[in-house]
Amino acid sequence: MSELQLKFSREEYAQRLEKTRREMEHKEVDLLIVSDPSNMNWLTGYDGWSFYVHQAVIVPPNGEPIWFGRGMDANGAKHTAYLRHENIVPYADNYVQSTERHPMDYLASILADRGFGSLRIGVEMDNYWFSAAAFASLVKHLPNAKFVDCTALVNWQRAIKSPTEIKYMRSAARIVEAMHARIADKIEVGMRKCDLVAEIYDAATRGVDGAGGDYPAIVPMLPSGAEASAPHLTWDDRPMRSGEGTFFEIAGCHNRYHVPLSRTVFLGKPTQAFLDAESATLEGLEAGLDAAKPGNACEDIAKAYFAVLARHGIVKDSRTGYGIGVSYPPDWGERTMSLRPGDRTELCPGMTFHFMTGLWLEDMGFEITESILITDTSVECLANVPRKLLVKD
Amino acid sequence: MSELQLKFSREEYAQRLEKTRREMEHKEVDLLIVSDPSNMNWLTGYDGWSFYVHQAVIVPPNGEPIWFGRGMDANGAKHTAYLRHENIVPYADNYVQSTERHPMDYLASILADRGFGSLRIGVEMDNYWFSAAAFASLVKHLPNAKFVDCTALVNWQRAIKSPTEIKYMRSAARIVEAMHARIADKIEVGMRKCDLVAEIYDAATRGVDGAGGDYPAIVPMLPSGAEASAPHLTWDDRPMRSGEGTFFEIAGCHNRYHVPLSRTVFLGKPTQAFLDAESATLEGLEAGLDAAKPGNACEDIAKAYFAVLARHGIVKDSRTGYGIGVSYPPDWGERTMSLRPGDRTELCPGMTFHFMTGLWLEDMGFEITESILITDTSVECLANVPRKLLVKD
Repeated sequence: MSELQLKFSREEYAQRLEKTRREMEHKEVDLLIVSDPSNMNWLTGYDGWSFYVHQAVIVPPNGEPIWFGRGMDANGAKHTAYLRHENIVPYADNYVQSTERHPMDYLASILADRGFGSLRIGVEMDNYWFSAAAFASLVKHLPNAKFVDCTALVNWQRAIKSPTEIKYMRSAARIVEAMHARIADKIEVGMRKCDLVAEIYDAATRGVDGAGGDYPAIVPMLPSGAEASAPHLTWDDRPMRSGEGTFFEIAGCHNRYHVPLSRTVFLGKPTQAFLDAESATLEGLEAGLDAAKPGNACEDIAKAYFAVLARHGIVKDSRTGYGIGVSYPPDWGERTMSLRPGDRTELCPGMTFHFMTGLWLEDMGFEITESILITDTSVECLANVPRKLLVKD
Repeated sequence: MSELQLKFSREEYAQRLEKTRREMEHKEVDLLIVSDPSNMNWLTGYDGWSFYVHQAVIVPPNGEPIWFGRGMDANGAKHTAYLRHENIVPYADNYVQSTERHPMDYLASILADRGFGSLRIGVEMDNYWFSAAAFASLVKHLPNAKFVDCTALVNWQRAIKSPTEIKYMRSAARIVEAMHARIADKIEVGMRKCDLVAEIYDAATRGVDGAGGDYPAIVPMLPSGAEASAPHLTWDDRPMRSGEGTFFEIAGCHNRYHVPLSRTVFLGKPTQAFLDAESATLEGLEAGLDAAKPGNACEDIAKAYFAVLARHGIVKDSRTGYGIGVSYPPDWGERTMSLRPGDRTELCPGMTFHFMTGLWLEDMGFEITESILITDTSVECLANVPRKLLVKD
């Protein structure tokens, strides 16, 4: 194996572990099974596209975390995680997609062997990577353990970003700027949508300023016309048409840290509906940014935005943003804070959000969004992309 | 909304539903909750990047399936699924990533309202998109239901491909050929790996012969040198080096149908270890292909390949292939058949596999693979990429 490549100092990993253990103590959990690849990365540095098989990072009562995963991925763990090799525990390949044995059967036996079988064990109950079958296996094979739902326990520890994390996000911001610049440069009537996507990937992957682009957790979204009322349709190979608006929901990514940013392009003469959506969004964005400061709550940003929308006669019933940072597919959100009424989480310096002001109306969609960093006194937009509806001929 | 865009005939969707119901009957299941986006797509046509929130297709005892998902994705369902609009059932946005309510709470109430609360209900227990919390919610809110594990029930119905599916896979094959041609054309010492990835994405996304490229379910894997002993590390922005081998594990994708194919490139004079791996792989591939014919079993391909490897002194302890077809992240495999000893599934005409012959040795990796279609009498390689170690000065 070649040398270990850590993205953060060992001190930073130690602080993360300590923060996590403090919260485990608070929840009276002795041991934590972390299934979320973003959390696995944040705790240990582990980075690989191996989350399609069962794997986990275990935070035991004392000492280093334990990486648990498929045998062929152990080398990847040795290469990317700061852990000592004895704490990288592989399982045999005949556990993969078997109907007879489950990787969690084996994890249970490991935990039992180490004397952890009767502990209070935290699990991420509502995580993509912790299936109903995984839980059933643990419950069956660790009958004396008490399981505690710790969904998002680690995610919450990630909310305030360190200087190095912010540095990576600034690189991601430069990348998303380049992606939007490429769109503005290349988009035209008659261009097949898949060819425009190729341009977006090109800018995203080559990166900027010596910082290469990593794969964003979501593929580019760029629905046009009436399809843009459906925000999560992906592209096709039909040509871009005159008289249609298209929004671009994309993110730059560097070292797995994301900065999402959306803009909307109209080919031809924009309809009044697009101009109205632009006015409402821009005014609302400013109002939301004014409310984005330490001491205020997440919901204050949403309420400020929704109040402006209401004056424009627009009702938005979906949340208007979420925490961002390190992530893996299928979502670049942190799945903790939401910018929506009722979320009273206090805004603190170092928190980062995608202020997702998208409007999905009956027969169109409109997105001009910002990724923001809460500073000591107010807010900073991480990327600098002209904040307007882009109109081309 | 613009017009409905179906990728298959209504007859084909009806046949798929009938096949699924037949298997449900066999398992004595009255109603099936399908969480896997590939299965949702195969049953209804639904296609969107919305699997980061809870969603499902319900196969009720009679009539059309029901799409269940986030409110903002209902338009996407109307646009891509053949279902009548009354069978597209959205949930409110305050269920999204809430700590107070779970989308499955609401699904349970819908099922109860329709009189399905006491049925035998199949669920995909070991699916990424069916979390432990989702199951706990259903169990809690449908106390009179009996739940039956139906993991991969639908996946198995997908094993034999229809003519239209094979047509889409042939387009995907043309795309993966173009991706490998691009690599052969562009790769050189000193090129940053992220720039090479940009070239791969460009070929993948623009597509060929009028068929645009869709996003593959896995990002390009291209580890070099000793890192290639870790098969699932993704790229970085360091330059390609002379004296190193790199394998490329990539897939073409069209209309969500995948054809994966791997090749290996050596920059400089290949070491004896690479030449030996090439000989063993090519000889083993031929042996495996000879065993790939109707009437034989999945394991026969693996045994033929492993026998050749053994003569070359190589032990491969991971499976050597899996079913392929329609898929979404994080995996382009179908998660049914495995080419490995013990899998006695009979090979039938229309089945498609990635014959994944990869060797991950202590300090190198080597992959020359084929995606194959079982024909009426033997086997066909779907893509045509020179089957050799590519050497560039």
